[in-house]
Amino acid sequence: MKYQFPVIRTMNPKVKPDESKLGFGNYFTDHMFVLDYNAEQGWHGGRIVPYGKLVLPPAARVFHYGQEMFEGMKAYRRENDIPVIFRADKHIERAQDANVRMCIPDIETELIVDAVNQLVDVDKDWIPSAEGTALYIRPFIIATEPKLSVGPSVSYIFAIILSPVGSYYDEGIAPASVYVETEYIRSVLGGPGYVKVGANCANTFLPVKNATSMGYNQVLWLDAKSRKYVEEIGNANAFFVIDGEVFTPPLAGTVLPGITRDSAITLLRDFGYYIREEQIAIEDIYRLHAEGRVQEVFSTGTSVTVSPVGKITWKDKEIVINNGEMGPVAKRLYNELSGIHTGKIEDTHGWIQPIK
Amino acid sequence: MKYQFPVIRTMNPKVKPDESKLGFGNYFTDHMFVLDYNAEQGWHGGRIVPYGKLVLPPAARVFHYGQEMFEGMKAYRRENDIPVIFRADKHIERAQDANVRMCIPDIETELIVDAVNQLVDVDKDWIPSAEGTALYIRPFIIATEPKLSVGPSVSYIFAIILSPVGSYYDEGIAPASVYVETEYIRSVLGGPGYVKVGANCANTFLPVKNATSMGYNQVLWLDAKSRKYVEEIGNANAFFVIDGEVFTPPLAGTVLPGITRDSAITLLRDFGYYIREEQIAIEDIYRLHAEGRVQEVFSTGTSVTVSPVGKITWKDKEIVINNGEMGPVAKRLYNELSGIHTGKIEDTHGWIQPIK
Repeated sequence: MKYQFPVIRTMNPKVKPDESKLGFGNYFTDHMFVLDYNAEQGWHGGRIVPYGKLVLPPAARVFHYGQEMFEGMKAYRRENDIPVIFRADKHIERAQDANVRMCIPDIETELIVDAVNQLVDVDKDWIPSAEGTALYIRPFIIATEPKLSVGPSVSYIFAIILSPVGSYYDEGIAPASVYVETEYIRSVLGGPGYVKVGANCANTFLPVKNATSMGYNQVLWLDAKSRKYVEEIGNANAFFVIDGEVFTPPLAGTVLPGITRDSAITLLRDFGYYIREEQIAIEDIYRLHAEGRVQEVFSTGTSVTVSPVGKITWKDKEIVINNGEMGPVAKRLYNELSGIHTGKIEDTHGWIQPIK
Repeated sequence: MKYQFPVIRTMNPKVKPDESKLGFGNYFTDHMFVLDYNAEQGWHGGRIVPYGKLVLPPAARVFHYGQEMFEGMKAYRRENDIPVIFRADKHIERAQDANVRMCIPDIETELIVDAVNQLVDVDKDWIPSAEGTALYIRPFIIATEPKLSVGPSVSYIFAIILSPVGSYYDEGIAPASVYVETEYIRSVLGGPGYVKVGANCANTFLPVKNATSMGYNQVLWLDAKSRKYVEEIGNANAFFVIDGEVFTPPLAGTVLPGITRDSAITLLRDFGYYIREEQIAIEDIYRLHAEGRVQEVFSTGTSVTVSPVGKITWKDKEIVINNGEMGPVAKRLYNELSGIHTGKIEDTHGWIQPIK
């Protein structure tokens, strides 16, 4: 380990929440990692401190111009009690892409790796062990310079917080009812849709609220240019099992390059499925569905792992997928990923990284 | 006045900055307005307090998902020393549109009006009087709920800060050299490009940095769908004087409905110009320029008032506008707007609103 950060331990450890009622991102552990940036010193002052408030000037650019990025990965408790993280290297690589797109100064990969490892180690008692739970690791960067002209900050805070989590959706992995959004968009070529940044999130709140108020669980996003092609479902990558092949939209600048997407493609290939990373028109989904050729629809992401879709509604026409039940491909993929996470299934891909 | 907010005055008033070296958004006054929101109480606790730090949980949604909005308006010092604000009503109306788009709970218009008036009154000694200066008023809202699932917050802070400002650009109103961006985009139909929110800003930092590193002052944005039509210049609305008529892109969901844009259209009509709110292809600008028919290009906004364009570069081809000088239409518009701001020219449109 290259970096060894000072640790100030909390004097008031919190009571840990009931593992059966975690939900997603509601509880936070006793400590956090903080690192500062300014032009003179670069990134400096890395430290693990008690989880506590951030104190910022009201003119901080993050409050006005959304200069911020985040990542999300998960640590799991194993039988031998050594915590592991799933594909931390890929998450940190993607974080660097977000930094480039948001004009945030580059952070050395090894520093992030060491910070994540040391923080999770300090709070390892917080990793839940119940089925379907994990310790969610949230690194993020915010622009702190107090200046109102529109442009990148000269100072930043990089922090990592940890949250013991259960299921992302309140309804668990019950198949979702999905609304195909035709007015609002999530992402467009030339925008930051391919990185994890606030600018991709806040703009989705209104259409998601509209859809949930109509009784749907999630939104299916179409491309901004033609409003024809599927991009994502909820905040996750979309998969379609059609005629026994698996289709997923390609990474062409608008779709998030999900780590779970990548893992799913690898595992599905291991299972023997032919994967087609191709544009999929919603019209074609409906046509193929009418012909009885759409077997399954599901989405993947770090938060949800695998989330099945039971119904899709596009222009007032609802179609039911696999009788509204989770299908065999999604189920096998979910079991395989969960098994690798928890150690019940052997990790043959080098995805599991024990905490140092 | 419906609302009378408690005022806690600073014990340590700051030394006011040199009015000739203000720049934009670098200095902040002695006080700020703060208002809180939660589900039980709605918006509550409005107060004027010493300008100071905001204290937030690191999991606050604003840091991760960019749920935030802002406005920007200006107060001016007049000869009779009564401060005035330019079209505060229109700015506050636009703020409500941003709240709707960002799923931020509605704030009563009268509350915002009263807060702006009382805060500016408390800090009225901060309104600069030098030519080209103003007191910039920045209302903004941030999402404060500490929760990591992607969705709207249940708690918010609305704050107003004040900044004495000079010219937005370091080079003053010297004609800008503008780079036509063909890869990155600012806005797309279905996104939040028509409201003032962080999600429209952070995504522009990288292309603007690329352009300035090549020696340009600003970026001219094309539409996301066809990359043909002019949308905005810098963070301001675009105007083109062609054959003695004035063209500006229409408000069709991607362009910000600028208050200065609206004022400029009204004044230009007063001057006798025919205004065409129409899509303008960059290719047509180049063709008309080659025919000697493009007289002026300029942009308008609260921050810049009127900013002339001297050169445009699209696909490596540079064209020079009006010999690289500010033209008569832009100059007359700038003088008229500045005259109305400062009281040297009569306000026949009811745009000047004295502080109550």
